[in-house]
Amino acid sequence: MKILALDSSGLVASAAIVEDDITIAEYTINYKKTHSQTLLPMLAELKRMAELDLHTVDAVAVAKGPGSFTGLRIGSATAKGLGFALDIPIIPVPTVDALAYNLYGSGRLICPLMDARRNQVYTGLYTFRRNAEVSAGYDMVVVEEQCAVSVDQIVEKINEYGTDTEVLFLGDGVSVYRDRIAELTKVYYSFAPACCNRQRAACVAALGAVLYRRGIVETAQAHAPEYLRLSQAERERAEKKESL
Amino acid sequence: MKILALDSSGLVASAAIVEDDITIAEYTINYKKTHSQTLLPMLAELKRMAELDLHTVDAVAVAKGPGSFTGLRIGSATAKGLGFALDIPIIPVPTVDALAYNLYGSGRLICPLMDARRNQVYTGLYTFRRNAEVSAGYDMVVVEEQCAVSVDQIVEKINEYGTDTEVLFLGDGVSVYRDRIAELTKVYYSFAPACCNRQRAACVAALGAVLYRRGIVETAQAHAPEYLRLSQAERERAEKKESL
Repeated sequence: MKILALDSSGLVASAAIVEDDITIAEYTINYKKTHSQTLLPMLAELKRMAELDLHTVDAVAVAKGPGSFTGLRIGSATAKGLGFALDIPIIPVPTVDALAYNLYGSGRLICPLMDARRNQVYTGLYTFRRNAEVSAGYDMVVVEEQCAVSVDQIVEKINEYGTDTEVLFLGDGVSVYRDRIAELTKVYYSFAPACCNRQRAACVAALGAVLYRRGIVETAQAHAPEYLRLSQAERERAEKKESL
Repeated sequence: MKILALDSSGLVASAAIVEDDITIAEYTINYKKTHSQTLLPMLAELKRMAELDLHTVDAVAVAKGPGSFTGLRIGSATAKGLGFALDIPIIPVPTVDALAYNLYGSGRLICPLMDARRNQVYTGLYTFRRNAEVSAGYDMVVVEEQCAVSVDQIVEKINEYGTDTEVLFLGDGVSVYRDRIAELTKVYYSFAPACCNRQRAACVAALGAVLYRRGIVETAQAHAPEYLRLSQAERERAEKKESL
């Protein structure tokens, strides 16, 4: 099965082509350019380099949110266009889950932190548990579903797991909240290194393949990003209405 | 610290720019093109996309071997050229160690397998152990140093660790030896998924940063790949000499 994957949920833009258990091509940029300038050229570059015939792609996996509103819209719109043109399904992958997938197989508690501004992070808690089936590997367990909360709230949850717990933080929220994490976390904590601490389209594809097997797909027309919060414009309009 | 990293030790060609704990850009191709056609164009693409001034790079990390003889020569020659021109050191990263770094933080036994032909694999055994220092994270422990042996030999070693052990295999040797692994392995085993089962330059960079802090660097002039075995030409010459 061939999956084309996109993640533009945060500062990172990433595209990948994954076939079964092989990443054929992956391209990731974490640089100040906007995703509308990077995502499609990156995909075009991969297509050219891997001599990809788009008509051999079986599904488009996309980081469906939460994340930056503009970033998500660019990712989802691109996925919808591809899915519609190629008549293939979209696999909507929760952004925070895909971020946690960077640490595949780890038995520790995994806590992705995406800076969501306004004193919140997009976060969740995950771990990997051995599948009962012989040689089936590890299933990612969603301990706390992705959500928008304060760092204090998620660390409070982590502390409840007791002092035997080890937690690995990752994501662009780490640099923003490093001091606060050090202050509040009562269990052994650390931060994932550069090779596995940000969004990667290959993780979206690998987790997407798992979701696909569970039947989690939608049509290109039905697909929409999942913002988890109101956009700034919607929030301001709601506030204005209230104050009238 | 800014590290430019290259891995062309196997079928994969990968290049990355990593600054401290952020992967600025990474490009990976696992496609039949030869590395001499891909590696430098990929690096040029990253340089352009991330607007990289090469003179801001502090070191070049390269997968030093083992691996394909031609692949290693292309990677090392490129690294030497860059290091010499920019007057910066080379960080020689053991290929199999960098491959294991894909599974950062895992407490399981990690067994990378690179198909080395002639019934051998380039392999080793690794795990991650918690650093005693607060929040310092996990150190990769080299349980068995990288070597060229048969799959039977490495699985025999794994079986010695007892039935509580869980082992994760990865690398291009998996597809070649999947049946043999199933036949011989007496502990719980599984295979890493597409997002973390092949060479990645970001892993070379992240592990390279650790080695750099330990002083493991060399000059561009001194750097040479580490083949672990004789090349086919050398082997045939030696055989010819013996038979004379």
